[in-house]
Amino acid sequence: MDFFFKPRGVALIGATDNRKKGGYAIFKNLLKGFKGGVYPVNPRYQEIEGLTCYPTVLQVPDPVDLAIVFVPAKFVPPIVEECAQRGIAGAMIQSAGFAESGEDGKQLQDKLVEIHKETGIRLWGPNCMGLVDGVNGQIFSFMIPTIWEDGLIPGDVSLIVQSGMLAAGFLIDMMTHGTMGISKACSIGNKVDVNECDVLEYLIGDPDTGTIGLYLESIPEGRRFTDLCRRSDKPIVVLKGGKSEKGAEAAMSHTASLAGNGAVVSGALAQVGVVEAYDFKQMMDLCRALAHYPNISRDKSGRVAILTMSGAAGIVSSDCIEREGLSVADLSAHTVDALKTIFPEWMPIANPIDLYPAAELHGRKKAFGEAFRAVCEDPEVDAILFHFFVFGKVSRDSVVQLAEMAKAKGKLLFCWLMGKQNDARQFQFLTHQMGFPAFGELFRAVECMRAVFSRNLNR
Amino acid sequence: MDFFFKPRGVALIGATDNRKKGGYAIFKNLLKGFKGGVYPVNPRYQEIEGLTCYPTVLQVPDPVDLAIVFVPAKFVPPIVEECAQRGIAGAMIQSAGFAESGEDGKQLQDKLVEIHKETGIRLWGPNCMGLVDGVNGQIFSFMIPTIWEDGLIPGDVSLIVQSGMLAAGFLIDMMTHGTMGISKACSIGNKVDVNECDVLEYLIGDPDTGTIGLYLESIPEGRRFTDLCRRSDKPIVVLKGGKSEKGAEAAMSHTASLAGNGAVVSGALAQVGVVEAYDFKQMMDLCRALAHYPNISRDKSGRVAILTMSGAAGIVSSDCIEREGLSVADLSAHTVDALKTIFPEWMPIANPIDLYPAAELHGRKKAFGEAFRAVCEDPEVDAILFHFFVFGKVSRDSVVQLAEMAKAKGKLLFCWLMGKQNDARQFQFLTHQMGFPAFGELFRAVECMRAVFSRNLNR
Repeated sequence: MDFFFKPRGVALIGATDNRKKGGYAIFKNLLKGFKGGVYPVNPRYQEIEGLTCYPTVLQVPDPVDLAIVFVPAKFVPPIVEECAQRGIAGAMIQSAGFAESGEDGKQLQDKLVEIHKETGIRLWGPNCMGLVDGVNGQIFSFMIPTIWEDGLIPGDVSLIVQSGMLAAGFLIDMMTHGTMGISKACSIGNKVDVNECDVLEYLIGDPDTGTIGLYLESIPEGRRFTDLCRRSDKPIVVLKGGKSEKGAEAAMSHTASLAGNGAVVSGALAQVGVVEAYDFKQMMDLCRALAHYPNISRDKSGRVAILTMSGAAGIVSSDCIEREGLSVADLSAHTVDALKTIFPEWMPIANPIDLYPAAELHGRKKAFGEAFRAVCEDPEVDAILFHFFVFGKVSRDSVVQLAEMAKAKGKLLFCWLMGKQNDARQFQFLTHQMGFPAFGELFRAVECMRAVFSRNLNR
Repeated sequence: MDFFFKPRGVALIGATDNRKKGGYAIFKNLLKGFKGGVYPVNPRYQEIEGLTCYPTVLQVPDPVDLAIVFVPAKFVPPIVEECAQRGIAGAMIQSAGFAESGEDGKQLQDKLVEIHKETGIRLWGPNCMGLVDGVNGQIFSFMIPTIWEDGLIPGDVSLIVQSGMLAAGFLIDMMTHGTMGISKACSIGNKVDVNECDVLEYLIGDPDTGTIGLYLESIPEGRRFTDLCRRSDKPIVVLKGGKSEKGAEAAMSHTASLAGNGAVVSGALAQVGVVEAYDFKQMMDLCRALAHYPNISRDKSGRVAILTMSGAAGIVSSDCIEREGLSVADLSAHTVDALKTIFPEWMPIANPIDLYPAAELHGRKKAFGEAFRAVCEDPEVDAILFHFFVFGKVSRDSVVQLAEMAKAKGKLLFCWLMGKQNDARQFQFLTHQMGFPAFGELFRAVECMRAVFSRNLNR
């Protein structure tokens, strides 16, 4: 599968200089980030933007491992045959108009299956957005090239999604809202040959991938899929579409996927340590939390210290933590003693640790710093959920300090963030760089903590 | 209670010209938005920023209905006595240092109870952030005055919160992220006299309030509270802190609240038609959804048409809708016929309505417009969940058109929004103005739909 992810040269069949066409977007994206040879193929051009354009793929020089195909569906089968003939290992077919679009398309798709079986060429797609590789700065996709300016953050979360639109939507949304680093986002479309198991297997072995998120409507190779998940040391998050009756009907209509019984799927996934998601952004949040804490020490059982400046937020945090099956840590005597030095005398010392009165006495910095240090050293604490109200610029140093202290003591750090939108976003970027996740909703922070700790139950 | 919400004149006891102090912030906030007389009181000043400053409240001229008190706790009881003597109807005590801060504070608080009982003066607080009134542009609070620049959006959601910090955090977060219009945000603190029932009763009768959200740790007057809720035509959302064992312990420590059994509370609230929230921002989302659709027609049962450009998002929407107990609408024959005119021939017509193929044939505008019109006219449809991917500026006219079409046909409109952060925010503002809610997470949109429809079961 390396020829899909690390081709030495790429032939782009359907290249064009028409800026409104997908074939142009793929071309620009290739030129922008891909380091190997780019060979546009289109009999109507001699050259495109200074690059030689070849009449067919047969004329394309070596080395060429991958063909990206973006021509009307009816032309795809003969072109793929030519690719096989030319000795190209894989074709990524981004054109639509196959099984998703009626009987004619279905026949074209059957033809692709045939070619694959006869020639051995591996086929990715059709009807997909292809591949976005944030680490290697490669976009093999007709996604609008302005996406480069929106700030693709390299990271170690890889995604596999059946839906094309969604893959693009996800990425743009994440890049502009968020802080999730992306390794490989793989839109696999109609899965005529390469399916989620093939890509999952590749990503499990991919050194650039740490955590894998999948949106799937069907899992036809169920046994292979669960075996892969069981074997994987990397966290795997699955959002399974079509778990309800109406959802299953829609999945059948969308990708002709037999969605199957939701409860059975959930049971099988849980058994092999997969974290199940129920929504798109939530899946992303689970992935980024797990990316920060993929394989935590086995002695950690989810005992959480809560640091807050709001008693109410501490209480609601406790409620969330208990609801999710984690526990509000019982602080050790040592921590209680340390907190006594900053708490006013009248105040009982307990977890959640409400720092407002201590901050009034000693200033926010000292109160927070002392309490943070104490819980970091507490053997009864596995994780720290701290609340942060961002109002203005936050000093980078203070965030670095927190992250390092927690890391040194093996505590998992999670942050719940409120405050001015732009400041909060900057702070979230910072926490991401410093290696811990921050969330805009309290229950989401706790959901993600649970996902991180629940992996210990399934290993 | 009008003297708290619509005083003719306000005496500010603890006014100061020291810009770092809360007494200055209250002063500036009063000058900025309050239309009645402002009378600073502080024996150390003759005037503050050109306004006459009075040595005690006894010298303050008529009319003065409200005293805002922000002096150290130990000075509060005699000052409140003076207020009563001066004939002031209510005092809003924003100082901290009472029951929340140990035995001495507890005694001071007991003294306040005594004064209230002896003199009849109504007391709000202590240990609170006071009142923010978005509709009348009044801030009776030591909140930082830059809050005015952050864009307080007037609206008809009113809030009652026990916690001070949180009230401020909420508002700033909402104002900068969001799109929720605020009527009155009431931070009631230690509730020495005025409690959630008093404020709730007032707000139920308040013409500026449409929907009421409460964060509470205890509901001591349980019977009165549930009676008020039952009587209220306005939607009421409650986030009850301390429902879990650890949460209840924390509530006891925070506001000495006996949080009680979570399941019992939930049962009682459900019986009187209260929508229960589980997190802070989720409570806000529930409030703004209910504010748009407070009392829907009784024949509506939650049959949802889903309009999407992504098959996957349609499927996950169906799953969410079924999970929340709503239903994916069975489209009428008339709608099916209308969709036939825009769908490609091969495509089965079903709900969720995946418009991508239709948009490829006819353009996005026509495909979406026709489908939208069809579901608006469908008697089998109560609500429309449409997915919108914002990428660039959205034309105001098109949003206005959708909103008006839905309104004319009595359909409830909900939007799930993805896309570039800043564009998405602008779009959200627009939808708010046009009278329907948009959400960044799909499941949240559906949770809020459920809240709107479930009111029909409880009336």
